[in-house]
Amino acid sequence: MAKTDWKAEAKALKKKLVRLRAATPVADAAGPKVKAPNPVSPLAPAGFPDLPVIAGVEFAAAEAAVRYANRTDVMLVRLAPGTAVAGAFTRSSTRAACVLDCQAKLAERVPAGAGAAIIVNSGNANAFTGSAGAKAVDAVTGAVGLALGIPASRVFSSSTGVIGEPLPHDRIAAKIDELAASLSPGAIGMAARAIMTTDTFPKGASAVVQGEGGEIRIAGIAKGSGMIAPDMATMLVYIFTDARVAPGLLQKMLSRNVDDTFNAITVDSDTSTSDALILAATGQSLAAEITARGPVAKAFEAALHGVMTDLAQQVVRDGEGATKFVEIRVTRAVTPQDAHRVAMSIANSPLVKTAIAGQDPNWGRIVAAVGKSGAEADRDRLSIRFGDILVAEKGWRAPDYSEAEAAAYMRKSDLVISVDLGLGRASRTVWTCDLTHRYIDINADYRS
Amino acid sequence: MAKTDWKAEAKALKKKLVRLRAATPVADAAGPKVKAPNPVSPLAPAGFPDLPVIAGVEFAAAEAAVRYANRTDVMLVRLAPGTAVAGAFTRSSTRAACVLDCQAKLAERVPAGAGAAIIVNSGNANAFTGSAGAKAVDAVTGAVGLALGIPASRVFSSSTGVIGEPLPHDRIAAKIDELAASLSPGAIGMAARAIMTTDTFPKGASAVVQGEGGEIRIAGIAKGSGMIAPDMATMLVYIFTDARVAPGLLQKMLSRNVDDTFNAITVDSDTSTSDALILAATGQSLAAEITARGPVAKAFEAALHGVMTDLAQQVVRDGEGATKFVEIRVTRAVTPQDAHRVAMSIANSPLVKTAIAGQDPNWGRIVAAVGKSGAEADRDRLSIRFGDILVAEKGWRAPDYSEAEAAAYMRKSDLVISVDLGLGRASRTVWTCDLTHRYIDINADYRS
Repeated sequence: MAKTDWKAEAKALKKKLVRLRAATPVADAAGPKVKAPNPVSPLAPAGFPDLPVIAGVEFAAAEAAVRYANRTDVMLVRLAPGTAVAGAFTRSSTRAACVLDCQAKLAERVPAGAGAAIIVNSGNANAFTGSAGAKAVDAVTGAVGLALGIPASRVFSSSTGVIGEPLPHDRIAAKIDELAASLSPGAIGMAARAIMTTDTFPKGASAVVQGEGGEIRIAGIAKGSGMIAPDMATMLVYIFTDARVAPGLLQKMLSRNVDDTFNAITVDSDTSTSDALILAATGQSLAAEITARGPVAKAFEAALHGVMTDLAQQVVRDGEGATKFVEIRVTRAVTPQDAHRVAMSIANSPLVKTAIAGQDPNWGRIVAAVGKSGAEADRDRLSIRFGDILVAEKGWRAPDYSEAEAAAYMRKSDLVISVDLGLGRASRTVWTCDLTHRYIDINADYRS
Repeated sequence: MAKTDWKAEAKALKKKLVRLRAATPVADAAGPKVKAPNPVSPLAPAGFPDLPVIAGVEFAAAEAAVRYANRTDVMLVRLAPGTAVAGAFTRSSTRAACVLDCQAKLAERVPAGAGAAIIVNSGNANAFTGSAGAKAVDAVTGAVGLALGIPASRVFSSSTGVIGEPLPHDRIAAKIDELAASLSPGAIGMAARAIMTTDTFPKGASAVVQGEGGEIRIAGIAKGSGMIAPDMATMLVYIFTDARVAPGLLQKMLSRNVDDTFNAITVDSDTSTSDALILAATGQSLAAEITARGPVAKAFEAALHGVMTDLAQQVVRDGEGATKFVEIRVTRAVTPQDAHRVAMSIANSPLVKTAIAGQDPNWGRIVAAVGKSGAEADRDRLSIRFGDILVAEKGWRAPDYSEAEAAAYMRKSDLVISVDLGLGRASRTVWTCDLTHRYIDINADYRS
């Protein structure tokens, strides 16, 4: 028998290993049964942004071990007396106890005089937990009210994490005094971290608007990564401003900007039971009150829209397993509903999303997604573009289309796919990400 | 510098390689840029069934190199004079030229006297190929009509494979004489193989019904594995019978059995541009004609339904990357539409499908899928079962629920998930599969 050349053998093995790792970086990093911190999304911004202090808002975070040890998992926000609060929530028919509670409290229209508070935990969604779920919400919001001297009807709560497990509300209640004692106007970054679940980075955005007689500031945070196909609101989002604005107008401005921001994103077509978006305006800016027809309303609403868009896009950038951020632009649809239907049909198609993951300009799958959407479409009038590259028109591949050029474009991390239906005047832009092995890794073993 | 111990190095590398391969068997087997035959689905039946010969039907298959070499990729079926033909097709608004052509020909109601033929190719869908697509259909069906002496208006065609590439119809036409010369009543298995694309096994099913004065036989074949969420029809399915039955009644029987067979399956929520189902009845059985109120109609329709269900389920069992076959039963919904919506919302949820792949009894995701479906549902009245295990009821986990027992159940390859909505009397059963790494492997690199 010939003597083994161990050096050659080692080199050959090494080559195989490198090749295999390159093909499946994910499984190597996390493996199926090992709980390791998720690496930060390649689409993440450079860092958490510097957010302006919002007068009248204080934050605190604590470790309550709701599900995991050694991480902050509860955030508390205190809002000064006079703060107007608006909200938008999931329309899921199985929504969580805390969502039902927030909706009921906002409908009550309790005067803002006493101030308000927001308490949020990660690790457990307190969803589908029967009557115990409502009792847990009462216990937590009651404890916050007591500690801060605020009526429980002005304490809003959210829970995010596993569905169907009883919320260990006593562990959260036990931390309220510690949280109350550490409230600080500058701790918004800590708050953003405490509400993360499968998120790989904390999400923040801000804007400053020139009001009458002073600046108006807006700062928001969000969490969300999987189970992202919001319906009416989104994951968890908290936006704060020092603007002086009546609750009714605040709610209107929030509601009419949800559709083309948070309702225009999708990671996996799955809608959460716990989606909640709360917007709080403390009124502590020196600027005059914003009124519906006043000179600042438009600028303020545009700035709010910008913050909402920024946070919504960050959620997609942290989509579970995402390696590509994809904007889908649909134009010239017959109705806005058709435009939305086509955009979401493309954005949610597993075949489109896996092709993008494979950097394959497989435009045939986009044609199929348009076709299945149920929207009015005419094969011979639609055109498809990857970035500026015209791919298909008049019912066929464009005459100058170059597969090599399209393939080069697909290697970018930020992509724009445009579909012009050529039929009407309605348009819609939505954002999504690709579907990769890591999505499966994360979700085939979420609970262990 | 110390001398490298290459033997130890090689051994360490080998260990790593083995571990990595175990964690990612798929990527290792297929790799991203290597085209290898897909291993047969673990859910496949033991083998292709023995199908009865249907008098008046002959099959042939050939290698036309439509896209790949060294495989049969064209099948021809000749149907005897007097054969009644019925069909059901995709409702996609971007459907392929051959689908439009079949629909137009069936609408013409050309008398059956001259016989009929079916010509099918894999490798290229001839979809979104503009006016060239229609010309290619004419070229192929015209060549078949000429070779067999059948009017082109009775030659039906299907194409399946990549979208947007011109169909090399001359390569198919060049094989027609060879095909015509090798037609044989026993070659149905070869035909089933010739129409496969990403399928890992050929699909066949049959039934025999006692008619008045003789046996009536039914035999069908299907192809389908990905882009499976049929709408009105499915992938490609061809069913043959020697029954004597008028075209109108045949079409009625086909149409009313599509909804709870082919329209009740989904692999990935993506609807193809080319779905087609053709049912041909040669009338060559010795049994008397089947009439709407005759004694055999019910038994024949039940047998047809059985063959359709069997083929539909085989398509799911060959779902791209599937390791689990999952039956979703929804009961006591307010309307049939609601029952279907809830069943498909669960069957298409990436989070439910990845949990099943991970053998995780993550019923919270089923609750979320019910909630997002848009159907009427009451959290406190619905109940969920895995097989016979009651998981959740009355808005919470069932008191006797054992996670260990449920986890053991999830390790089976055939699963039943039941959701009782507790509201009305409508029910719906659909079939789906899990979402695994292999689905991503197959679809992130389909075209190369």
